[in-house]
Amino acid sequence: METIGVIGLGNMGKPMARRLMQAGYTVVVHSRSREPVEEVVDLGAAEAPTPHDLALNANVIITSLPDSRAVELVCLEQNGIREGARQNTVLIDTSTIDPETSRKIASVLGQRGVEMLDAPVSGGQAGAIAGTLSIMVGGPEAAFNRVLPILKHLGRTITHMGPAGTGLMTKLANQIIVAANYVAIAEGLALGVKAGLDPANLVQALEGELAQSRCLELKGDRITSGNYEPTGRLTLHIKDLYYALQTARVLGVPLPMTSIVYQCFEAANAAGRGNWDHSAVVTLFEDLAGVKIRKL
Amino acid sequence: METIGVIGLGNMGKPMARRLMQAGYTVVVHSRSREPVEEVVDLGAAEAPTPHDLALNANVIITSLPDSRAVELVCLEQNGIREGARQNTVLIDTSTIDPETSRKIASVLGQRGVEMLDAPVSGGQAGAIAGTLSIMVGGPEAAFNRVLPILKHLGRTITHMGPAGTGLMTKLANQIIVAANYVAIAEGLALGVKAGLDPANLVQALEGELAQSRCLELKGDRITSGNYEPTGRLTLHIKDLYYALQTARVLGVPLPMTSIVYQCFEAANAAGRGNWDHSAVVTLFEDLAGVKIRKL
Repeated sequence: METIGVIGLGNMGKPMARRLMQAGYTVVVHSRSREPVEEVVDLGAAEAPTPHDLALNANVIITSLPDSRAVELVCLEQNGIREGARQNTVLIDTSTIDPETSRKIASVLGQRGVEMLDAPVSGGQAGAIAGTLSIMVGGPEAAFNRVLPILKHLGRTITHMGPAGTGLMTKLANQIIVAANYVAIAEGLALGVKAGLDPANLVQALEGELAQSRCLELKGDRITSGNYEPTGRLTLHIKDLYYALQTARVLGVPLPMTSIVYQCFEAANAAGRGNWDHSAVVTLFEDLAGVKIRKL
Repeated sequence: METIGVIGLGNMGKPMARRLMQAGYTVVVHSRSREPVEEVVDLGAAEAPTPHDLALNANVIITSLPDSRAVELVCLEQNGIREGARQNTVLIDTSTIDPETSRKIASVLGQRGVEMLDAPVSGGQAGAIAGTLSIMVGGPEAAFNRVLPILKHLGRTITHMGPAGTGLMTKLANQIIVAANYVAIAEGLALGVKAGLDPANLVQALEGELAQSRCLELKGDRITSGNYEPTGRLTLHIKDLYYALQTARVLGVPLPMTSIVYQCFEAANAAGRGNWDHSAVVTLFEDLAGVKIRKL
């Protein structure tokens, strides 16, 4: 069996590492935070002091990091994966970062014989714990096929989208649509509730209409009961929208709606809801329109 | 059995009249266009020369008209329903008009003993033919209960939302969310396809993600195959967005995203796609981004 290195033991990385250990893999970890490292070391993982050391000991490396800069640092800079990586290593980057940076890293690592897959996930921490994530993968098909048995311990829907960057592009398209859905739900509910409709009745009616969406089904009741416990954090979604707009700038694609949606998310963050669920953009419209969608 | 008057025999009104005749009701019709009138008269309907005459002969009246002005005209002006209506008549207005106008008409007709229900429908012409529309109803509960057996011949999901105007408010919230979904799908696909993804693969992946929506499921394949045969016409959706923005102005609800979405729909109309399906807003982004999402 492959030895798997896991770099980044946050909300997503830690449960992924645990699932792989439970599946019988030898796991070596590296993370900036001590607490999760100690937790998985107690369960039998080895610890590597740097990404470089981790790369010396693993032929499959999974990264789960907050942003492009963090992935670049871990992959390409001092004590990074590039320095230590063995031939035929596959790097599975599950972070949502900008596709340009990802392709650049893939190209540099490729010169060292490392094949990189961009494999952003969705499904939140609950999905990572249950192994039911959906994983959109870009990169060489042979590398994808080689690590598919590993990915199957982490996710339920695993789709190879094409060459490097296509997993991330799919994720960004998803994030554009999801964010727009939440703002649309916010505007629809703000208007309806200000006109006197009961929020819960309105949500229920909309679920039976063309307005139906997974966002509405999963978050409608939470929105009307004011439960913004995060399954996906607002600040992380802002980062994804920022990457989408950045990528659109590079490719020359006008995104007028995403641009407004992004600003609404920024406003919700500025209002102090950055650590709430991404659907908390709805609360911004409660303030803007002077209505209470949440039952108190 | 009640005698039912049907005013407006367009894409929606004509199949509704036919279904009611098939269900055994005596139906009297009025419409500006000769052709559909002759068609239903051949099937056994009576014709009324004016809404006034129709109101003299029916205790339930269904209107299916293109906009607020048309409903106002038929209800309140010369030779209109108000002049002819009998006591205890129920008017079911299935048109999507602005809620302010609807409430005004309801109030004026109320003084003549006519109870009005705002009962906008969704499900398109196919739904009207099959009797599977969904109908969102506002207005007095007693009137709703009285005509429910009639509505059941027309629709499958029939929901009483509250007092006058609440059916329309629900419909407008629906239209806000649906329009936003199509623009979001357009932006997501334009970005992904310009980055090199295959449109059909991208649609399929998104359907399995949080981006899932009824819009994507019903129209995804049509969008990637370039089939914009209308189930709901773009120009009609523009009218609905306009009413939503007008209502938001009256209620003091900021709708920044709907405002941009509306402009995108106007742009698609200006580009000559007004009679295409409302999802044809996607083709605007093909032009804007210089990508082909449609397979040729």
